[in-house]
Amino acid sequence: MTSSDTAVRAPSELEAMRRALQIARFGPANGPNPRVGCVLLSPDGDVLGEGWHRGAGTPHAEVAALADAADRGRSARGATAVVTLEPCNHTGRTGPCSEALLAAGVARVVVSVPDPNPVASGGAERLRSAGVDVATGLLADEGRALLGAWLPSVERGRPFVTLKLATSLDGRVAAADGTSRWITSDVSRHHAHDLRAEVDAIVVGTGTALVDDPSLTARNAAGELHGQQPLRVVVGHRDLPAGARLHGPGGELVHVRTHDPAQVLAVLATREVRHVLVEGGPTLAAAFLAAGLVDEVHAYVAPVLLGSGRPAMADLGVTTIGDAVRLTTRSVIPLGPDVLIVATVDPHSTTEEH
Amino acid sequence: MTSSDTAVRAPSELEAMRRALQIARFGPANGPNPRVGCVLLSPDGDVLGEGWHRGAGTPHAEVAALADAADRGRSARGATAVVTLEPCNHTGRTGPCSEALLAAGVARVVVSVPDPNPVASGGAERLRSAGVDVATGLLADEGRALLGAWLPSVERGRPFVTLKLATSLDGRVAAADGTSRWITSDVSRHHAHDLRAEVDAIVVGTGTALVDDPSLTARNAAGELHGQQPLRVVVGHRDLPAGARLHGPGGELVHVRTHDPAQVLAVLATREVRHVLVEGGPTLAAAFLAAGLVDEVHAYVAPVLLGSGRPAMADLGVTTIGDAVRLTTRSVIPLGPDVLIVATVDPHSTTEEH
Repeated sequence: MTSSDTAVRAPSELEAMRRALQIARFGPANGPNPRVGCVLLSPDGDVLGEGWHRGAGTPHAEVAALADAADRGRSARGATAVVTLEPCNHTGRTGPCSEALLAAGVARVVVSVPDPNPVASGGAERLRSAGVDVATGLLADEGRALLGAWLPSVERGRPFVTLKLATSLDGRVAAADGTSRWITSDVSRHHAHDLRAEVDAIVVGTGTALVDDPSLTARNAAGELHGQQPLRVVVGHRDLPAGARLHGPGGELVHVRTHDPAQVLAVLATREVRHVLVEGGPTLAAAFLAAGLVDEVHAYVAPVLLGSGRPAMADLGVTTIGDAVRLTTRSVIPLGPDVLIVATVDPHSTTEEH
Repeated sequence: MTSSDTAVRAPSELEAMRRALQIARFGPANGPNPRVGCVLLSPDGDVLGEGWHRGAGTPHAEVAALADAADRGRSARGATAVVTLEPCNHTGRTGPCSEALLAAGVARVVVSVPDPNPVASGGAERLRSAGVDVATGLLADEGRALLGAWLPSVERGRPFVTLKLATSLDGRVAAADGTSRWITSDVSRHHAHDLRAEVDAIVVGTGTALVDDPSLTARNAAGELHGQQPLRVVVGHRDLPAGARLHGPGGELVHVRTHDPAQVLAVLATREVRHVLVEGGPTLAAAFLAAGLVDEVHAYVAPVLLGSGRPAMADLGVTTIGDAVRLTTRSVIPLGPDVLIVATVDPHSTTEEH
């Protein structure tokens, strides 16, 4: 992308971008590919067709919109394509969208977010060189919000890492005898299960796997498995017993025999994982944080006091207050009796490796 | 109070109660006496006079309102007194309000909250026996909110106790080397100083006093002392050094040489303390909680991770999750980057002594 121009030619383009952002959300939040929506407008501003990306291996949003227009018997010649992400310029599971738009005779393309993917980007340049008018940056904040973890994952060249903590008010994750069911409320646990359904992988250490025997599935309020199940990743050297719940129904189980978080992410990157949820325990959480490999923290804090028991976080090597890991609060969400604090890690506050 | 009747005779009575609740807040939030407001209405609903209580040793709201009416040259004969708290019936620093109202010829009294004080109550009964019409319970929720800690303090026969915690996301109150300035933000600390200005006493253990050398004053954002300074109470056997900040400008210093929270509250009750703020450290906090002598927790949680250091709470004798001290969240207040969670202690969740 060599230039950008957010000026819309007509109110219909702004309206079309809002619609494209909306229909993009019909696509899956997880998986290797981003959520993208596309609306095709005639020169008069009529909607010719619309489409969204339904996940890896299915047509991209632009191609889906062109197909929709064809189904409606409308030609895209001279049309404006309004699309939430810069059209790709590479041949992956599908052909490049830039070529599909050119072949259909599209005259103008309005983009929300430029594609940060070094492999796929260059679509705007390709289109411009073929004489297509391209404007970028329309509703860019909304466009980035739509992309969620996908965007920073591509930018950082590794999966985006969310660290989940579920603690008492005094920072404990289990009582002295190891019991922890439940510190947080139903409301928080349902919320956490919905997050599991949006990530590609859940990671725990062998310690947590052996002590808590979790199933690490995404379930709805009725306890039924969500249709989409994240990879279940266990980190560490010890074996799991044959009867562990992790061998039961749910996502594929991956055992990564290392204590190095960077190595864990490298393994997951080869499996096209974009969003990782680190769920515990304290040692694994501290290892990811100390390695600068946590992007976001979801801390569920319950109005409970324990006074003893397992602390939420193992040693981070912080000895004095000036060296504390400081996060930036993004949102504070009351969940029944609990509070969810969503905070991001300032890349400068830890030894960032990327 | 033998009966109650919240029916208002006229919209002017409801309006007058709202005004009484409003002017009551001109009085001090702390001190031994409650905040009370009173509005006198003519039989036609005109405001004859109004008054509020300005603190111990000054006229009660009813007497202030009668004086205001006299100043305006209006007679209270046949009037309705609308008052936020049941008129007292005892002679303390001032005479009983019930007698003052009778002497002025007031014909009707509308009350928000009945007086729970066994020493002062009976005003409504005294008025009724003299032929005055008395209605109680108008805007009672607002009336109770106005009274703050005073009401439960009187009901429980001891000072109301707020426990303040200021922790990292992982429940630490200091880093490994003991440094703690600052875990929470300016915004939180200003909020906490405003709370100090509303309580009658701040309590810390000798450990905190010796390690942190706090001044325990209520200061504004510019660092200047508020006009009202709470008692500064140090609990424990060790002496403070002559140069301790606690000997500097601020409220009176009281050293209670005990480790028994009930004994601390008994000492403070003799000094007419209604609202105590327990500020630390973890041992004192745990002692108050374990004794069932915490009514409310103010937990300031900062988006900071430490991984080690002093935990917010010492041992509570809780060994398993079922015995956790469970609180009821009353409000969740974002304060800059931090969150304040205000929660009350269910009297059944600990060994309540009262």
